Amino acid sequence: MVIDLNSDLGESFGRYKLGCDEKLVPLLTSVNAACGFHAGDPIVMRKTVRLAKEAGVSVGAHPGFDDLQGFGRRNIVLSYDELYACVLYQVGALDAFVKAEGMKLAHVKPHGAMYNMACKDKGMAGAICRAVKDYDPGLIILAQESGLLYRTAVETGLKAAAEVFADRAYEEDGTLVARSKPGAMINDPKEALARVIRMIKDGKVTAVTGKDIPIKADSVCVHGDNEQALAFIEEIRTECAKEGIRISPISQFIV
Amino acid sequence: MVIDLNSDLGESFGRYKLGCDEKLVPLLTSVNAACGFHAGDPIVMRKTVRLAKEAGVSVGAHPGFDDLQGFGRRNIVLSYDELYACVLYQVGALDAFVKAEGMKLAHVKPHGAMYNMACKDKGMAGAICRAVKDYDPGLIILAQESGLLYRTAVETGLKAAAEVFADRAYEEDGTLVARSKPGAMINDPKEALARVIRMIKDGKVTAVTGKDIPIKADSVCVHGDNEQALAFIEEIRTECAKEGIRISPISQFIV
Amino acid sequence: MVIDLNSDLGESFGRYKLGCDEKLVPLLTSVNAACGFHAGDPIVMRKTVRLAKEAGVSVGAHPGFDDLQGFGRRNIVLSYDELYACVLYQVGALDAFVKAEGMKLAHVKPHGAMYNMACKDKGMAGAICRAVKDYDPGLIILAQESGLLYRTAVETGLKAAAEVFADRAYEEDGTLVARSKPGAMINDPKEALARVIRMIKDGKVTAVTGKDIPIKADSVCVHGDNEQALAFIEEIRTECAKEGIRISPISQFIV
Amino acid sequence: MVIDLNSDLGESFGRYKLGCDEKLVPLLTSVNAACGFHAGDPIVMRKTVRLAKEAGVSVGAHPGFDDLQGFGRRNIVLSYDELYACVLYQVGALDAFVKAEGMKLAHVKPHGAMYNMACKDKGMAGAICRAVKDYDPGLIILAQESGLLYRTAVETGLKAAAEVFADRAYEEDGTLVARSKPGAMINDPKEALARVIRMIKDGKVTAVTGKDIPIKADSVCVHGDNEQALAFIEEIRTECAKEGIRISPISQFIV
Repeated sequence: MVIDLNSDLGESFGRYKLGCDEKLVPLLTSVNAACGFHAGDPIVMRKTVRLAKEAGVSVGAHPGFDDLQGFGRRNIVLSYDELYACVLYQVGALDAFVKAEGMKLAHVKPHGAMYNMACKDKGMAGAICRAVKDYDPGLIILAQESGLLYRTAVETGLKAAAEVFADRAYEEDGTLVARSKPGAMINDPKEALARVIRMIKDGKVTAVTGKDIPIKADSVCVHGDNEQALAFIEEIRTECAKEGIRISPISQFIV
Repeated sequence: MVIDLNSDLGESFGRYKLGCDEKLVPLLTSVNAACGFHAGDPIVMRKTVRLAKEAGVSVGAHPGFDDLQGFGRRNIVLSYDELYACVLYQVGALDAFVKAEGMKLAHVKPHGAMYNMACKDKGMAGAICRAVKDYDPGLIILAQESGLLYRTAVETGLKAAAEVFADRAYEEDGTLVARSKPGAMINDPKEALARVIRMIKDGKVTAVTGKDIPIKADSVCVHGDNEQALAFIEEIRTECAKEGIRISPISQFIV
Repeated sequence: MVIDLNSDLGESFGRYKLGCDEKLVPLLTSVNAACGFHAGDPIVMRKTVRLAKEAGVSVGAHPGFDDLQGFGRRNIVLSYDELYACVLYQVGALDAFVKAEGMKLAHVKPHGAMYNMACKDKGMAGAICRAVKDYDPGLIILAQESGLLYRTAVETGLKAAAEVFADRAYEEDGTLVARSKPGAMINDPKEALARVIRMIKDGKVTAVTGKDIPIKADSVCVHGDNEQALAFIEEIRTECAKEGIRISPISQFIV
Repeated sequence: MVIDLNSDLGESFGRYKLGCDEKLVPLLTSVNAACGFHAGDPIVMRKTVRLAKEAGVSVGAHPGFDDLQGFGRRNIVLSYDELYACVLYQVGALDAFVKAEGMKLAHVKPHGAMYNMACKDKGMAGAICRAVKDYDPGLIILAQESGLLYRTAVETGLKAAAEVFADRAYEEDGTLVARSKPGAMINDPKEALARVIRMIKDGKVTAVTGKDIPIKADSVCVHGDNEQALAFIEEIRTECAKEGIRISPISQFIV
């Protein structure tokens, strides 16, 4: 049994600071680094890659829509060619910092609205996967197994890692309950922790309807916005140790 | 005797079209492709790289300041760290399209104000050269031999190619006569052509003062804005053939 | 009988030129000036307003989504508060140039995707109309009568002018046939001209289905991309003169 | 004796939060609101204007260079026409929110590099003042009396208010000691407070050289980044009350 812990980092921009990256990085095994379109700037990208290097953590690109004001969370309709080029651009830009530090880019996880839309739109998922494959066919796509992005990655011949969320409720089809609906968030840390461990050990989670559904968990998406969030990651690590679950970057076990 | 013909391409953006790239590319041996900061967008970058691939022309990155409105021609004061990251980002972004097309990035030539400022500012030249070297120590810096960018590239251990201009007058120190001064432009195509051939064959050019000065010419920067400009490139090619000057990308002869 | 001739202008940006504004302006009665988000920059905005002033033509704001690369034609999902603020910002910015030239802003016509989305989304139409009314309750909203933007303007207590298109086919409900469908464009200038005159005189147009539908025409949207387009506007003016249709800015007759 | 307390506000952007605007506004008499180029977005601008309205505080525009990543602190070389248009655009955009709230724009204070450069460059100062005057000749320019911006405002026929800084050392010519030099900052709150009161009461301050120089103080620029900064403003208010110095917006006493 093995699990990766990933988080979105490098989301500061110019004078604007976001997140506790220095404290968060050492608790992770994979960093998703913003690429300058929805967050991050070149200086922030260099810093993020260096933090990951110092902590011995794997780095992936976290491309988003070109929408700093909306933090990449606004739905924007691009043609598939535009989306392909938008992703390829960002992956290359982030990889420049990875190469400059003597590291190797491990994965790609789209951000926010791009991620959500691609999980439901086969054409978008295809454009993203083609961009990643054309750049480097050895890269891993990190996405929920229930969505079209994960499935398209597999069909495209890319490696795919299945992402789960500790703090989110699931529909019976394995998709996330929309944030606007009641019960979308799992606010109790103990419950969240128990759900995570069960997803990893048993490949199951209880959907918002009460029904148990199968779920594939290669990587848990965690947050590091505050001390409480950081403590929760520590608890996951402790509990995994107790349960004999190894914590390792996806690049080490996804083949 | 050998010379490269380079030109700045891929300067369209979204619905805005600039240049005659399709007609210009086959006349060149090296393309300097805009990287999205002062011109170009991801769709344009892909198209530019593909045009170069079809024409069998070498591709370099043409990074500029993040200033679409000023077309990268406004002086902007960045810290050296910011400049380093700004160049590294753009080189990686452009290279993503080069890699995706199965090509190899050949050189880097900064654009506009970044080029001009770096030719006179050792710290800026150093930041640019470090970014290029950290990305790929095999890349060539394309710049005027008289400026600090070329010299710093050599000191940094990078390969450097010396750029000359057919349509610009030179000061005695080998720098360009500022556009604001009288006599800055060589408007007569015959004179321009004769100057180019002399720079290549004899390594000499007559400065604006009337004095002959030595000049190193590995690559001639040409423009393709209109039919006249395209015809001038044809004339250079014809004259070079007569004179036994081989036309070849810098990546083939700069070692 | 009276009609206004409006066109989208000031769509250049930095070094990028678009349109034949100098030739087009004198043929119009209303200019919709881009406000810097989807096209236009402050220098272009000043020039556009001055062109209108010299030609004695009315000026309106043409706000769009903040999407230069997509030319404001990409659907972007904003909250209503964001849309309100986005429109208010652009109207004020454009009006600054209008005020500086001693003119008075006459109308607001949203651009591209913002226009199309607002014609179908009551919440968006409301946000736009509130922004316009909060800025200046005397401003006119220019939009198709069949859409929600026009209707919402009227409900909000704003003046509204009904826009028609010479070169576009209509569905039976008065909306435009989508560009992706066959028959969406009226390519024959004679047919286009006859349709325009009928819309103005009789308030009728033949829908794509063949059925005659009522249509309200206060202003015809024209284009000035090339000589042919400019000649078409001349023909409209000539034909209107023959038919006794006065050509006048909406600000002169919409009350 | 009367003094205004001004501060730069509305510097958040999208998801990025900066400053303690809610706590700071009630302590001020004048708000300088960022206009979307170096900081602020339309949503933030609306919020800032509303905060000022609720607190009964005067609002001015705080235009900066179009440089979010550099927070408007990077020197950027614009033509005077570009600068004119850039300032006019931002003043109009901010004023749209002021008008929408039924308020009246009181002043303009350029931000960061634009402010610093204009204090030393007559052409820049002229471009800014022309933009402000063309927009509304009743607006006040807020700037240091020692610089060219203040002087040019007066020459242009605009009202000008003299700004002083509590936490900065002065050269003998009344300009600020560069931040890079030792002794540039007045770190002791007691000393800072005593200097402010002396500037207001006696029109004098001790320069970094030890020599007393005359200084005109209509408005003190204060910061609200943290609790300590907020407490310092309270101290200024208390001390002013003791000394019989009235605290009032510049719009009330600059004529």
